[in-house]
Amino acid sequence: MDDLIIGEHKLSSRLIIGTGGAANLEVLERALVASGTQLTTVAMRRADAEGGSGVLELLRRLDIELLPNTAGCRTAAEAVLTAQLAREALETNLIKLEVHADDRTLLPDPLETLEAAERLVADGFTVFAYTNDDPVLALRLEEAGCAAVMPLGAPIGTGLGIRNPHNIELIVSRASVPIVLDAGIGTASDATLAMELGCSAVLLSTAVTRAADPERMALAMRSAVEAGYLARGAGRVPQRFWAQASSPPR
Amino acid sequence: MDDLIIGEHKLSSRLIIGTGGAANLEVLERALVASGTQLTTVAMRRADAEGGSGVLELLRRLDIELLPNTAGCRTAAEAVLTAQLAREALETNLIKLEVHADDRTLLPDPLETLEAAERLVADGFTVFAYTNDDPVLALRLEEAGCAAVMPLGAPIGTGLGIRNPHNIELIVSRASVPIVLDAGIGTASDATLAMELGCSAVLLSTAVTRAADPERMALAMRSAVEAGYLARGAGRVPQRFWAQASSPPR
Amino acid sequence: MDDLIIGEHKLSSRLIIGTGGAANLEVLERALVASGTQLTTVAMRRADAEGGSGVLELLRRLDIELLPNTAGCRTAAEAVLTAQLAREALETNLIKLEVHADDRTLLPDPLETLEAAERLVADGFTVFAYTNDDPVLALRLEEAGCAAVMPLGAPIGTGLGIRNPHNIELIVSRASVPIVLDAGIGTASDATLAMELGCSAVLLSTAVTRAADPERMALAMRSAVEAGYLARGAGRVPQRFWAQASSPPR
Amino acid sequence: MDDLIIGEHKLSSRLIIGTGGAANLEVLERALVASGTQLTTVAMRRADAEGGSGVLELLRRLDIELLPNTAGCRTAAEAVLTAQLAREALETNLIKLEVHADDRTLLPDPLETLEAAERLVADGFTVFAYTNDDPVLALRLEEAGCAAVMPLGAPIGTGLGIRNPHNIELIVSRASVPIVLDAGIGTASDATLAMELGCSAVLLSTAVTRAADPERMALAMRSAVEAGYLARGAGRVPQRFWAQASSPPR
Repeated sequence: MDDLIIGEHKLSSRLIIGTGGAANLEVLERALVASGTQLTTVAMRRADAEGGSGVLELLRRLDIELLPNTAGCRTAAEAVLTAQLAREALETNLIKLEVHADDRTLLPDPLETLEAAERLVADGFTVFAYTNDDPVLALRLEEAGCAAVMPLGAPIGTGLGIRNPHNIELIVSRASVPIVLDAGIGTASDATLAMELGCSAVLLSTAVTRAADPERMALAMRSAVEAGYLARGAGRVPQRFWAQASSPPR
Repeated sequence: MDDLIIGEHKLSSRLIIGTGGAANLEVLERALVASGTQLTTVAMRRADAEGGSGVLELLRRLDIELLPNTAGCRTAAEAVLTAQLAREALETNLIKLEVHADDRTLLPDPLETLEAAERLVADGFTVFAYTNDDPVLALRLEEAGCAAVMPLGAPIGTGLGIRNPHNIELIVSRASVPIVLDAGIGTASDATLAMELGCSAVLLSTAVTRAADPERMALAMRSAVEAGYLARGAGRVPQRFWAQASSPPR
Repeated sequence: MDDLIIGEHKLSSRLIIGTGGAANLEVLERALVASGTQLTTVAMRRADAEGGSGVLELLRRLDIELLPNTAGCRTAAEAVLTAQLAREALETNLIKLEVHADDRTLLPDPLETLEAAERLVADGFTVFAYTNDDPVLALRLEEAGCAAVMPLGAPIGTGLGIRNPHNIELIVSRASVPIVLDAGIGTASDATLAMELGCSAVLLSTAVTRAADPERMALAMRSAVEAGYLARGAGRVPQRFWAQASSPPR
Repeated sequence: MDDLIIGEHKLSSRLIIGTGGAANLEVLERALVASGTQLTTVAMRRADAEGGSGVLELLRRLDIELLPNTAGCRTAAEAVLTAQLAREALETNLIKLEVHADDRTLLPDPLETLEAAERLVADGFTVFAYTNDDPVLALRLEEAGCAAVMPLGAPIGTGLGIRNPHNIELIVSRASVPIVLDAGIGTASDATLAMELGCSAVLLSTAVTRAADPERMALAMRSAVEAGYLARGAGRVPQRFWAQASSPPR
């Protein structure tokens, strides 16, 4: 795979992992190593299972870049403040912007997200913006200066995969920044499909951390992302209604 | 991945390739190597693009086991005769049984297939039976002594993927022999899904040989099969209607 | 809707109802009337909820033609015998042929079904053949002289709808006799889709009889079949990737 | 069907038609009559095929209520002005709010739509708001005082049906105002599904006006909406993995 460039960062892995949902630090470590990830997101306002600062030390030890996120924020103001605290504490200008509208859907609030994105870009952050799969909003977030736009496949934690591949294709076809499929991934074929649709990377958390065997699922996701990336570039065969023999009669 | 045992044969790759549709021998060689396949099927009655016996020499050189197939046969009698000629000429008791009902669908003829399977098993062949996705016929073929049952995802050459995952799940849930997804694969996520549904392996030809870049698509399929195999074993998260946060509020 | 001709029978309703699953005769009567059906199938070997001969009297009173079926039979011989007993007792040469392979899937046994069809046609029956959605077997049943071929949408009682629309389209595109979608219908849109795919009629039982409100669901199915029939003939608009304004700018 | 109440308006038909795309006034008239619609939307800024004021006279003659729309507007300001001109000219306070972000997708601009909705509600309009299928924005539009929220199934004119049924279900499950499926409908089963998902009505234009036979497709859509409405209320059977006989063995 080619390196993925987001802002000034270069990644050879196209799988971004979230730490939420892991049973403990040992499980998380094995999963992160298996995934091959080089970028991992941690909620600044949530108590991850592993608790305290252990997860930050773990990422440092594994030499995985930290992508702080603002999950749990409800307004632009909260998200901006959370991002600023994260930058100060963690010495990174990377921020995954998440502004959730409510607890039942955890869907992004489109207006607060856009407003926060504008303010964070103006404040010098490299913004990864979590968004719904609306092609209009995706373009607005790119125009606002986001380094990556991260449409969901389905609501967080549902494992429903990519509910609307057509929207992801529309987003990709008009984007100039990397599109990262974020949220909704349930299993490996979802990740493969995301890459085949043209996404530049996949972000997932509980699909790995809450699988029966997180380490093995992390390995699966690593291969799945690679498979989809390669397939996208290989130029698939067209779909046909009638059969076609693979070789003509002798 | 664990080794796949079919009859008396042991395979560490779960990707079986068909040679039909390759532009020439060089392209085919690169694709086969990239795929990591250890078992490749060649039509005894079809003129493969590469012509003549070149493909057989190629497989020998690459140390890939040959799985002759009876594509192009319309009756049990034709298929049995073709299999016997293949065994004699190629010194293998492996046979991929294909009895096509007609040229427009290339769908297997269920009655002729079952009859041919019974006769070939009685004649000492290790039979890989290409079949539709009917769970009843799949069980009959297993009972007839086939070493592997190979339901289609969609008609040959359509690239439509797995049209009926429910049937594949029904087949897998009752099978005691390996189920190999055969025909219909269009891109990597199709192969990943096949393995997630519980198939033991995937067989494909033109999805690789007719891709814009066959070598790259072969690499993609290799990763895709691995991803699906690992994900199946890793125990995916359940699907939910409402969202669920990956970590509880702090 | 045009009349539907099956064998020598003419039907103005394209909704065929099965009586199985009804809570009692009153519920069944209201559902049958609401459905507008003119042809209703009764299992000769099963104890319908309404018990005894009540259902036959009900059909007579409602002037609904009876289509006896062989549900519960496991072999061609059983099915032929059941059909002959039905003809004698009920004075109809109509028979819905069902040979179930096993209890968990209730899927039709393809070989026994085909053999029974041949024998019943030779014996003068007007045969409605319940079959899987295999386009090859559908054609064989037509060639055997069946008056109608009845592929399933999904296994009986699953309510999964039409699992493989592609197969139904393949069957319809090659058929010269009416294709009736049988089994798997769960709700109205499934019936509409069946007709849009080109089926001539829809047969369903528990989608109506086990709905919370069977009479209302019967009305829904009546409209659903009509909607799909009309839409098929109306020539739908093509699908597009990009939007298209309904009217040009002024 | 129960009457549908939107704002102060009562409708016995749950099919709202758009006039765009009709070949001429005669075709449009036959389609409108066949559809049974009582509410029809006309673009204030677009040249409908029928031209000039003919369509308005036609609606008056057929006693169909007019729902002016703001299609073609790009900003909240344009939409508000267009709505005000429509109110003055047509003596109706109904307005279908559409603010399209661009010509290729014709997707609604979420921010401009919400702003326009707030201003129109404050100005005394009964607002039908065309929106994407984002459950968060749908709730915001309801909170802004819209009388009906109209999520799309797919982009205008694509005929792709309902790309994301999960989102429509999420929207319906939290709504207190009628949800009207708007845009994307291609054929009858799409309309049936919309109603089964819990929508209160369906709005469509070119699925009827550009069908090969618009009058017949209008009839189909009328039945399709009725079917879906009835089925929703009838309480469908659950989906099962394994089969279930409709009646127990005798």
